[in-house]
Amino acid sequence: MNYPKGVKAPIKSTKKDIVYGNRGMDLEEDLNTTNAYYRQIDKAYIYKKPTPIKITKVDYKKAKITEAFFASPSTTDYNGLWQGKYIDFEAKETKNKHSFPLKNIHPHQLEHMKHIIKHGGICFFIIRFTTRMETYLILACDLFELIDDEASVAYDKIKEKGYLLEEKWQPRIDYLKVIEEKFGGR
Amino acid sequence: MNYPKGVKAPIKSTKKDIVYGNRGMDLEEDLNTTNAYYRQIDKAYIYKKPTPIKITKVDYKKAKITEAFFASPSTTDYNGLWQGKYIDFEAKETKNKHSFPLKNIHPHQLEHMKHIIKHGGICFFIIRFTTRMETYLILACDLFELIDDEASVAYDKIKEKGYLLEEKWQPRIDYLKVIEEKFGGR
Repeated sequence: MNYPKGVKAPIKSTKKDIVYGNRGMDLEEDLNTTNAYYRQIDKAYIYKKPTPIKITKVDYKKAKITEAFFASPSTTDYNGLWQGKYIDFEAKETKNKHSFPLKNIHPHQLEHMKHIIKHGGICFFIIRFTTRMETYLILACDLFELIDDEASVAYDKIKEKGYLLEEKWQPRIDYLKVIEEKFGGR
Repeated sequence: MNYPKGVKAPIKSTKKDIVYGNRGMDLEEDLNTTNAYYRQIDKAYIYKKPTPIKITKVDYKKAKITEAFFASPSTTDYNGLWQGKYIDFEAKETKNKHSFPLKNIHPHQLEHMKHIIKHGGICFFIIRFTTRMETYLILACDLFELIDDEASVAYDKIKEKGYLLEEKWQPRIDYLKVIEEKFGGR
């Protein structure tokens, strides 16, 4: 099929809305729930960006898009504001047990993350190893150092350099707790 | 038509891609060009977010969206990072000569902007009065104070409290110059 790099085929869902297989829906749902909770308690304003779409046909009378295509993302999926600081991250799931492959991340996204780090933003990955039921936060600067020749990162290295995120009732995945410990305090 | 509040009918264009009438395309193009220039000179990483779309039908074999609708934006159109600071703004054009009507701005967007101000982000509007060929930057906190009973803001007030942005070759509209003068210096 003709999906651009970094965009996986959407997967069918039993829900009314269509969901995307880009990073596995569960992690995305967990993060959306977490971000909604952060907003609710006035802690942070972090959003998932809309999926980039190239619209090619519109029925103007019905205000309906009748043809459009998935486009490559040029930035990360999530960004926002926490305690005056710019937050920027990418979230991915992998079924791999022993490594995290970068093939689902578009080169533009990696470039973007390098710029964000250089300009003082807080930039990280949230990576879920679905077969292990483990979710890690790893700073982008740390992950970039671990990329091997095959553009993947060993699970053991992520475990060593990253932070295991526990799953709770709410916030579902309290990733800002890690950020707070590293960059925190007003 | 059934466009959500804050979303205007898309307008037809002679270009291949469809363009949106949400804020008048010229201003959006000017800002996209400006932001691309800022990235090119490594000054700031500010992007327009993708248009929020609710996808309802997909042809999976062809990786094609066959039915989708325009959705209401819950945040502003532009955000990003400049000198370690979180930047967040909304851009609008108006044909009105004497006031800027807020009717094209979704209440969620105004709420969002209030949160951003409170949490230390730099938040503003870029407003173009097309009949006057004038474009102003006005800080969101200043604009909020000027909103009258009819949810509009007088042109004279914007002229007084805002900053006239000159249009140049490049950057097309150097809005960060204003921000630099007000918040600037590393």
